[in-house]
Amino acid sequence: MAARLSGIQSVTPDLIATAELTVETRGEGFTDITREAARFIEQSGARDGALFVYLRHTSASLVIQENADPDVQTDLTTALRTLAPQDAPWVHSVEGPDDMPAHVKGMLTGVSLHIPVQSGALGLGTWQGLYLVEHRARPHRREVVLQFIGSKT
Amino acid sequence: MAARLSGIQSVTPDLIATAELTVETRGEGFTDITREAARFIEQSGARDGALFVYLRHTSASLVIQENADPDVQTDLTTALRTLAPQDAPWVHSVEGPDDMPAHVKGMLTGVSLHIPVQSGALGLGTWQGLYLVEHRARPHRREVVLQFIGSKT
Amino acid sequence: MAARLSGIQSVTPDLIATAELTVETRGEGFTDITREAARFIEQSGARDGALFVYLRHTSASLVIQENADPDVQTDLTTALRTLAPQDAPWVHSVEGPDDMPAHVKGMLTGVSLHIPVQSGALGLGTWQGLYLVEHRARPHRREVVLQFIGSKT
Repeated sequence: MAARLSGIQSVTPDLIATAELTVETRGEGFTDITREAARFIEQSGARDGALFVYLRHTSASLVIQENADPDVQTDLTTALRTLAPQDAPWVHSVEGPDDMPAHVKGMLTGVSLHIPVQSGALGLGTWQGLYLVEHRARPHRREVVLQFIGSKT
Repeated sequence: MAARLSGIQSVTPDLIATAELTVETRGEGFTDITREAARFIEQSGARDGALFVYLRHTSASLVIQENADPDVQTDLTTALRTLAPQDAPWVHSVEGPDDMPAHVKGMLTGVSLHIPVQSGALGLGTWQGLYLVEHRARPHRREVVLQFIGSKT
Repeated sequence: MAARLSGIQSVTPDLIATAELTVETRGEGFTDITREAARFIEQSGARDGALFVYLRHTSASLVIQENADPDVQTDLTTALRTLAPQDAPWVHSVEGPDDMPAHVKGMLTGVSLHIPVQSGALGLGTWQGLYLVEHRARPHRREVVLQFIGSKT
């Protein structure tokens, strides 16, 4: 395998910053929260370290995915519907036909992730965006916890 | 999009605490380890930061999911069985028909996650619990690494 | 449930180290980057804490999986092909038939994970390796961000 490791940059951790982000979703689909995450990093005076993002729900999730062509999000939503169909014989059905598929989709995609922070900016790739993915059919209010661990500016 | 960012709380990191949790599973299914994680946070004197949870295995995984209706866990287990069926023509079959499906389930759900810690308590959502999910048919002893990075009480 | 929590070890965080790893993949499949991650931990003078690994792409991902039998990786690749087939009616098809399945596979397996670091060594389980999984058919150059947060040696 061809692999190359860059020089190592070292700093001393002296900041943990925490904030909560409330997002109103419009029902099933992707909501881009990259800008809100970037604003948090800027406002918290973060320099080098990592941003930890956490979603306090079990029928929505957090995903880093392509931010260029909106068709990708359409297809990702379709893929999740195929993997967790509404018409499967779910035992848990009291909260509606979209609820149990939403839990499956949440389990497969997760509620916890991190993004590197370098020189005060999110270290996302060129085509990456941070998304809150709503799996329920109707709009919901969702709570996200943003945390930076690293060095101050 | 409607999104609102709360005020930012800042502290200085002065604690990394590490412990290992050994869990005896009863075969395929969910084991709630939320209480053990909360006890670790309490005993380590953690105040603000994040709990990092890691599982040292490749045929089990860590999941944050609904803790209210046990039917949800039944359906999640069924969903994983459908996504990684025992009767697919797996090449790797020497460890039994449940082994390769267990690796697929482990890959889809993951072995590494974090939970925010705020004012000395786990920042889980109201309906969230932390689960070790056993994907093998028989009981196994599983090792989990719990780590807190943040500030002391 | 039978669960046992070990004694807690506490240290003071005084190091955040960051480096970038460039990996040339050979097309669809698993590339083991465990050795590169271990080298980063050694060279950065890391002692106790956690290694955070991040991939700056949306059609490849990071996975911790079995490192013993290569057949497992073959089967994992097959499983992902079944879950995200090339012949589904994807809307996003301009980048080739392998592109949209690659995004789905990336979403299901993720681009962000952590591994504990204990006494200067990666705290992987006996059978665990760290893999960059290429989901595109052709070889690609992939960028990984390695970060250690914890205490110095």
